[in-house]
Amino acid sequence: MTVDVKTVLDNLRATTPLVHNITNYVTVNDCANALLAIGGSPIMSDEPKDVEDITTICNALNINIGTLNKRSIKGMFAAGRQASKIGHPIVLDPVGAGASKLRTETAGKLLDDLSVSVIRCNMSEAKALAGAAASTRGVDVNPDDAVTEENLAESAAFAKQLAAQAGAVVAITGAIDLVADADSAYAIRNGVPIMGSITGAGCMLSALMGAFVAAADDPLSGAVAGVSAMGLAGQQAAERMQPLDGNGSFRTYLLDALYRMDGDVLAAGALIQEL
Amino acid sequence: MTVDVKTVLDNLRATTPLVHNITNYVTVNDCANALLAIGGSPIMSDEPKDVEDITTICNALNINIGTLNKRSIKGMFAAGRQASKIGHPIVLDPVGAGASKLRTETAGKLLDDLSVSVIRCNMSEAKALAGAAASTRGVDVNPDDAVTEENLAESAAFAKQLAAQAGAVVAITGAIDLVADADSAYAIRNGVPIMGSITGAGCMLSALMGAFVAAADDPLSGAVAGVSAMGLAGQQAAERMQPLDGNGSFRTYLLDALYRMDGDVLAAGALIQEL
Amino acid sequence: MTVDVKTVLDNLRATTPLVHNITNYVTVNDCANALLAIGGSPIMSDEPKDVEDITTICNALNINIGTLNKRSIKGMFAAGRQASKIGHPIVLDPVGAGASKLRTETAGKLLDDLSVSVIRCNMSEAKALAGAAASTRGVDVNPDDAVTEENLAESAAFAKQLAAQAGAVVAITGAIDLVADADSAYAIRNGVPIMGSITGAGCMLSALMGAFVAAADDPLSGAVAGVSAMGLAGQQAAERMQPLDGNGSFRTYLLDALYRMDGDVLAAGALIQEL
Repeated sequence: MTVDVKTVLDNLRATTPLVHNITNYVTVNDCANALLAIGGSPIMSDEPKDVEDITTICNALNINIGTLNKRSIKGMFAAGRQASKIGHPIVLDPVGAGASKLRTETAGKLLDDLSVSVIRCNMSEAKALAGAAASTRGVDVNPDDAVTEENLAESAAFAKQLAAQAGAVVAITGAIDLVADADSAYAIRNGVPIMGSITGAGCMLSALMGAFVAAADDPLSGAVAGVSAMGLAGQQAAERMQPLDGNGSFRTYLLDALYRMDGDVLAAGALIQEL
Repeated sequence: MTVDVKTVLDNLRATTPLVHNITNYVTVNDCANALLAIGGSPIMSDEPKDVEDITTICNALNINIGTLNKRSIKGMFAAGRQASKIGHPIVLDPVGAGASKLRTETAGKLLDDLSVSVIRCNMSEAKALAGAAASTRGVDVNPDDAVTEENLAESAAFAKQLAAQAGAVVAITGAIDLVADADSAYAIRNGVPIMGSITGAGCMLSALMGAFVAAADDPLSGAVAGVSAMGLAGQQAAERMQPLDGNGSFRTYLLDALYRMDGDVLAAGALIQEL
Repeated sequence: MTVDVKTVLDNLRATTPLVHNITNYVTVNDCANALLAIGGSPIMSDEPKDVEDITTICNALNINIGTLNKRSIKGMFAAGRQASKIGHPIVLDPVGAGASKLRTETAGKLLDDLSVSVIRCNMSEAKALAGAAASTRGVDVNPDDAVTEENLAESAAFAKQLAAQAGAVVAITGAIDLVADADSAYAIRNGVPIMGSITGAGCMLSALMGAFVAAADDPLSGAVAGVSAMGLAGQQAAERMQPLDGNGSFRTYLLDALYRMDGDVLAAGALIQEL
């Protein structure tokens, strides 16, 4: 299946999906601005007594377990059950799964209890979810887990297997991004290394994914469009870098690139290969 | 009454008001930097056991209910009662009132219990506070609620009525901003649409309002000066936009414009009409 | 002892220290980006049930008590005890000590219970920790407490005394920065006044300090290198300022300067005087 990323993004900009985010306090501001940049609308709420009302008026739910706590975990389940019940797409970002028992267990239980549409993570987190003997480096991928051209076929097979196991589309981002459901897998070669030098590139993508999946006919198309859009924005931001610029300017340029992106730009720049 | 916005801002810069903020974790960094930019000083604290001491050493309190939770709600009341008791001005930003039962009720109770000086909100939130059958679009205004030249007189009458009902100055921001007390109303025509494409323009204004009201002879003057300053900064930021810039750069330029603003600049650019 | 700041920063960039931060939600994003900029790796976690696992896989722990709450205080102690037990360096930033009873007491208890390597604070907070009759201005230094050329010897003696009392290196930043242990003290004259016009310059330094101390042979060298690096980055950022720029652009340039800094640049620009 060829994914029509232009139509997905055009539809996103035409419909302004409202995305409920339960996310970490480290990168939450960037998630909100990224959603506004791409044409969505963010709302954040994690209090168990507030989340059902909020998620009901939204079009998608993004659950990110970075800086999870007892109260926000309750909020994640309450919002997630309501979203599952009313059929809203749910994106799960299992930040740091594998790095602590609480994170690994919470991510696993969320997957078990909720109708998750897309899991967005790095390869170390994906391995932790799959129950493999993963070792993370905090919230970053373990270099041994990196997807390369050499292990691409093997990595794609793993992604499809995890997608089948979890009943969700899996989007594993890194040097090469992989998006898979149980039956098919895509390699996306957008993106630049400096994206790893700002905090929140992954979190922003998960937030954006909520809007992309809400705007797409199916979660797989939404995930492919979202991953390629984020990577392309990263490339465009890197091209603006001047000699004195660093990760501060790059973060600003990244939001700017998302703000300027439309369906035609995305279709022209997306580097998507069906495997 | 003609509001002397120059004197208010000059006084703010001369006195560096210390503003206690209990605010959401989405835009809190922007609120702090906006306060520093305009010449105030921010402090954030939401723990019930901490807020009384903190608010006592400040000059104003800004309560913003975005990402409220059970603990921070207790902190809002504890801080607000102490501020009321010692006569510090309180700004209330009822983020998402109308979007959930918890938010609507919390905003209402805060208004009932505390001596609120200024309510800063959008028109959907204002209608929710007034008990009208408001419908919000998450934390954004419902398009049907927008203030226009056509409904300006009617909107101003509503703002005055809400001000009388709440016993507070009301600042309703949008395409046209309205500031009213029970007896008078002002339309402020500063501001630019791209302010809606960053998160936190409203939250930043509410934080700034704490400093403006602390520096003004009366809350109405402080609110008019604060609203026009934020709108003018938005215009100046928009004028700096280059072809590749988006909401990331705009946010930076907005803080820069607040940082560069003084009483003379504000007096020259403020577009204030007494209705 | 002459501190070899080049070797400390070169070693930091070669080893990518993973720093666990329990820090306030106001400046946490800047702390994460500052750590990434200088070549470290950040992870944030404050839930008591999560922090032991997280801090165990890290190389240093940074505890910052801004926006402390009952739950996060428990997390600070749980993480701090584990870090003390396994010998990881701990940085303590007692934000607002002296401004509220809760903050003063919490900072004191953390110092008593944990093996703190470096205390990073302003002079008002340092006086509060020392049990002096300090008066803070919220989270900013009281102007009466500023370190000047006139009171430098006296201030350095105080810093050494506090270091002896606390059993930790003390880094007191301001117009002139002081770093001391019980036996020796350094004045560092990097830095620019506009660093006080962004939120989080101190918090970012405390986060960076975790990486610098992890990369140094001893906490004193790490603290001297960290303080001079942050000050030098501030100077470089100030030099980039254009006529319309304010604190928004300065914040971006500051991260950029940290990102571009290496051991040679730091050694050439550091203004360190052993007292």
